[in-house]
Amino acid sequence: MTTRIAVIGATGYTALELLKLLARHPDAEVVIATSRQEDKSYLQDVHPSLKNSFDLALTQLDVETIGSEVDFAFSCLPHAASASTVRGLMDQGVKVVDFSADYRLNDVAVYEKWYGVEHPDSERLGSVPYGLPELYRDEIREAKLVANPGCYPSSAILALTPLLQRNLISASDLIVNSMSGVSGAGRNTNPAFQYCESNESVKAYGVGTHRHAPEISQYCTAAAGENCEVLFTPHLVPMDRGIFTTCYALPNDGVSANDAMSVLRETYRDERFVRVVNHLVETKHVVNTNYCDIAVFESGQRLVVVSAIDNLIKGAAGAAVQNFNLMCGYDEATALL
Amino acid sequence: MTTRIAVIGATGYTALELLKLLARHPDAEVVIATSRQEDKSYLQDVHPSLKNSFDLALTQLDVETIGSEVDFAFSCLPHAASASTVRGLMDQGVKVVDFSADYRLNDVAVYEKWYGVEHPDSERLGSVPYGLPELYRDEIREAKLVANPGCYPSSAILALTPLLQRNLISASDLIVNSMSGVSGAGRNTNPAFQYCESNESVKAYGVGTHRHAPEISQYCTAAAGENCEVLFTPHLVPMDRGIFTTCYALPNDGVSANDAMSVLRETYRDERFVRVVNHLVETKHVVNTNYCDIAVFESGQRLVVVSAIDNLIKGAAGAAVQNFNLMCGYDEATALL
Amino acid sequence: MTTRIAVIGATGYTALELLKLLARHPDAEVVIATSRQEDKSYLQDVHPSLKNSFDLALTQLDVETIGSEVDFAFSCLPHAASASTVRGLMDQGVKVVDFSADYRLNDVAVYEKWYGVEHPDSERLGSVPYGLPELYRDEIREAKLVANPGCYPSSAILALTPLLQRNLISASDLIVNSMSGVSGAGRNTNPAFQYCESNESVKAYGVGTHRHAPEISQYCTAAAGENCEVLFTPHLVPMDRGIFTTCYALPNDGVSANDAMSVLRETYRDERFVRVVNHLVETKHVVNTNYCDIAVFESGQRLVVVSAIDNLIKGAAGAAVQNFNLMCGYDEATALL
Amino acid sequence: MTTRIAVIGATGYTALELLKLLARHPDAEVVIATSRQEDKSYLQDVHPSLKNSFDLALTQLDVETIGSEVDFAFSCLPHAASASTVRGLMDQGVKVVDFSADYRLNDVAVYEKWYGVEHPDSERLGSVPYGLPELYRDEIREAKLVANPGCYPSSAILALTPLLQRNLISASDLIVNSMSGVSGAGRNTNPAFQYCESNESVKAYGVGTHRHAPEISQYCTAAAGENCEVLFTPHLVPMDRGIFTTCYALPNDGVSANDAMSVLRETYRDERFVRVVNHLVETKHVVNTNYCDIAVFESGQRLVVVSAIDNLIKGAAGAAVQNFNLMCGYDEATALL
Repeated sequence: MTTRIAVIGATGYTALELLKLLARHPDAEVVIATSRQEDKSYLQDVHPSLKNSFDLALTQLDVETIGSEVDFAFSCLPHAASASTVRGLMDQGVKVVDFSADYRLNDVAVYEKWYGVEHPDSERLGSVPYGLPELYRDEIREAKLVANPGCYPSSAILALTPLLQRNLISASDLIVNSMSGVSGAGRNTNPAFQYCESNESVKAYGVGTHRHAPEISQYCTAAAGENCEVLFTPHLVPMDRGIFTTCYALPNDGVSANDAMSVLRETYRDERFVRVVNHLVETKHVVNTNYCDIAVFESGQRLVVVSAIDNLIKGAAGAAVQNFNLMCGYDEATALL
Repeated sequence: MTTRIAVIGATGYTALELLKLLARHPDAEVVIATSRQEDKSYLQDVHPSLKNSFDLALTQLDVETIGSEVDFAFSCLPHAASASTVRGLMDQGVKVVDFSADYRLNDVAVYEKWYGVEHPDSERLGSVPYGLPELYRDEIREAKLVANPGCYPSSAILALTPLLQRNLISASDLIVNSMSGVSGAGRNTNPAFQYCESNESVKAYGVGTHRHAPEISQYCTAAAGENCEVLFTPHLVPMDRGIFTTCYALPNDGVSANDAMSVLRETYRDERFVRVVNHLVETKHVVNTNYCDIAVFESGQRLVVVSAIDNLIKGAAGAAVQNFNLMCGYDEATALL
Repeated sequence: MTTRIAVIGATGYTALELLKLLARHPDAEVVIATSRQEDKSYLQDVHPSLKNSFDLALTQLDVETIGSEVDFAFSCLPHAASASTVRGLMDQGVKVVDFSADYRLNDVAVYEKWYGVEHPDSERLGSVPYGLPELYRDEIREAKLVANPGCYPSSAILALTPLLQRNLISASDLIVNSMSGVSGAGRNTNPAFQYCESNESVKAYGVGTHRHAPEISQYCTAAAGENCEVLFTPHLVPMDRGIFTTCYALPNDGVSANDAMSVLRETYRDERFVRVVNHLVETKHVVNTNYCDIAVFESGQRLVVVSAIDNLIKGAAGAAVQNFNLMCGYDEATALL
Repeated sequence: MTTRIAVIGATGYTALELLKLLARHPDAEVVIATSRQEDKSYLQDVHPSLKNSFDLALTQLDVETIGSEVDFAFSCLPHAASASTVRGLMDQGVKVVDFSADYRLNDVAVYEKWYGVEHPDSERLGSVPYGLPELYRDEIREAKLVANPGCYPSSAILALTPLLQRNLISASDLIVNSMSGVSGAGRNTNPAFQYCESNESVKAYGVGTHRHAPEISQYCTAAAGENCEVLFTPHLVPMDRGIFTTCYALPNDGVSANDAMSVLRETYRDERFVRVVNHLVETKHVVNTNYCDIAVFESGQRLVVVSAIDNLIKGAAGAAVQNFNLMCGYDEATALL
């Protein structure tokens, strides 16, 4: 049975990836694509790669129209703008996957501290499932609204959760060091992301201040069953897409890399999109796929847990379609393999 | 006064950078360039960018010829092969900067464990200055042989030494996370460094096993005055050159990022090639230069010390010319600004 | 109905793309993957991105085994080696798409001049359809063997054929200037394609000597109905994939760019994989797709016809699957949208 | 003797390269750097790579101040704005190298047609030497104002002029096909030059409409002694810097590639910055240098003349310093080798 879909905020990079995936989905029909600012009137003019797959006018966002025309919406709006819209869509009975950070944090105070705005729909916080199906599949299946995870958090939380749950690593002094391709910065005109500024250069950014830190910490805390403040440092590397995350964890008494690998393998044995591998992970093997690759090594007194995803797919649009499939009763992997 | 020079192993990437720098040096005259395997007979055929700067036949390595023709040699040979040659050059009274790892470690047992070969000149270990002029300038000035530092170690040791020396950070649980451009792998035909294997991808490698780990640990130990086992993880990123190093250090009682910055500024105040900056370091600002940029931030319970160098210049050929200048009595910055 | 498939020479870049497409094909089952040289024993070890999609041992090529096990083979062998194998496969009744150049040229003398080897199956030359479905669909549908086109020729022939057929441009003095990403060089250890040799650099190569010149000329001659010697110059540009072709053609009496666009639009109106666009073509819009984008401009006395494809998909594996679909009676676009 | 210098419009990429070169020049002292829009107040804040080399406040452009403080100015302003300023500087007796296109074309009507503005100093057109020292050295030496050449034109004119002057190739039907790195687009916030838009993609642009076409045509006409309308097509390739130009020329009666090479060799025998090479030219060999590499091949009925430069150096800042050296009586190669 076909699901009629709206893509809200259809002009960015994650929306483009979402539309490519939905074009392959036998039961998904995108009937509305909105844009707040784009002066081009057709989706395929903004994204020429979509020509032949879509012939759809871009429209201004109107919650009531969406409510009357579609069953499902993907919100690709910025934080705060997204929750304001999602609230209306919920009232209209539209199911939603929200790409923004608005429903990822449980504590409104933490949200408002890190995002610097009042939350427009704070009463829903804490009741919206986090869209990592590998960890929250049952809740997602029943949900009307799912908070699609952040790209960095996806890579870190999938790598660390089984080890924290099974008490193989200490919840204290966890260091998450990540590198992302430039598409993670979104489609914008910030001079820092001009070709000649980002090409042939690497840098750390947001050291100690990146908004994904509290998100990682919240879900690691949930896994560990005790407070877990993760130190998170993102870096920008010169490539289009891909995230590589290197986690430095203190193993509990005598836990080896092999022990950690065994637990990861066991946890993800039936998962179609997590591959626990016994070689060095590279983003090249996961870009343009919905896979997350994970491996563990020993170094000094630590376990080094590495993971790789495509930030636009498993870190955004792919996870969103995985959630959509679960929420609508399709096979979870539809359009994703 | 002109110094006559031999470049031994002249066909690799570091040798190319060295030759570019020496071409600018008013008092350096390269008269011998050797190659073990190259079938092209002229330096400028192997390195077309050097055409017009050099017109020099490549010759087979012959220690006696070098001894009779030159005052100074740069050895760009692989480890073990280098020390075998350097030993002969010392006997001939030729001053040498050795690019290999052969004289960097003080303990022959550590060398033989990490490099897997018998050391061909082990009696010299411990008496050869480490070629970081910012830390060992006086010894370098007097030396006949200098051990040019590894690229990763240069970035880490310059960043950490002042903080360890002044006891601002703990010598235990130091984590050094580095990213390097692909030229760090040298000029070879390893399939892993083919364009389509390295482009648009990042990965960790040598986790827990990279040979620069003991080198970093040895010089951090020297700075700290106590044993310092550094956990080191290198990553490969898709760019030609540049190293970015992110160090996670535990500050001693109440030491802030500002305290650390002050000590770094003070230490490097008169250095021409170390810039302590109050913005986010990027490799773009140091590539094709001999600079090392350093900054410090706070994150969670840690200080995050970041540094950037050009792996082929400050991490190899630039440091070598800096050492050459000191050893021959030229201004230290000649050909480097 | 499922078709059982062998992929012969499964370790290169085109084979990898082919396998990714076949993994999505509901009626394709890869049961044999051969490799002459790889010492890794499983397909997914050579191509880690295929893990979870394939679990298949690599075997040595054996024509009789293939004949008894499969209905269809894709030969990704080098020229000459391919025809030797294809000959045997034909005897076994296996349908084949041949990725090599062995069956693309009609004249054995031209083949032997440009490829420098005796043709191992020359009697078939001239009777094997060229695998551009947009031009030779009917012949492909009936064929037991199809010659998959070269990557550069695909981009040029799709752009020029309608204009030559309709006599809009002169068959003389046609200049085809192309740029390709580095994957076009295949997966090998040639030092010229090492990362640091190809990155941040462009160059022409094979000027006046590239083997795709006679292939382009043959099919342009066929389209024009008169002899057409195309001047072809390929260039290497620093990216993984994509070909951009700029054709300089002399328009016949008063033919405008608009006239040319109209003819192209008309010719390709019902084609699912050729898009005639009225904006500047970019390879970014076609990579990872089976599309060929084409546009026409005027400059000086010439028409400038530009086209873009993904060299590994529309220029290789995608065309091969398109041909496979036609030869086996599936919808032509299966697994390609 | 030191020359006091102003750099007008100091925040772009060509200005950055210019400043790096001037930092190495023993007789150049930059005392003024202006910026119209930058809110950072120091040059080294806008260009962090210049830290330690410069400590200079950015000021608003004031012609009288410049006139009273400096002997020489480099104008890096956009077209029209530049000529307005240069006019004033001439009145103040300041010597100028103008990076803009304002003084390159001799015919005000051609200028106004292609640049779409009234020329603010049209009476000077036709009397300002074109800053290619290899062709106009004597005029440059005597000049108070020099028109620094465009980047694409430099690569094409150096390659074609000797062949046109000596009548080896036809002045009609000349095709110049160029590829440039992204820095050629300047430092701006145009979405088309965002990292993810330009990376991993190539495209033609300005087909039939690029402003460098009349510039190339004018100097080819001068060389040929007859009207020469060059067809010029630029392409954007994913790298920071470098231009590769492929010229398709019709040889006159029986002229071979060897003949053309001989004439090029002879013409440039004493030039320090033009290298006529007998191998395939690559931009890698010229980036970060002031060299132009040239080679000639035969293909079909044509000569294919290829050349490569660094668009920011020989195509901009390096040529400017070469002109500066000539205008001020320094050795022409100072700071450029």
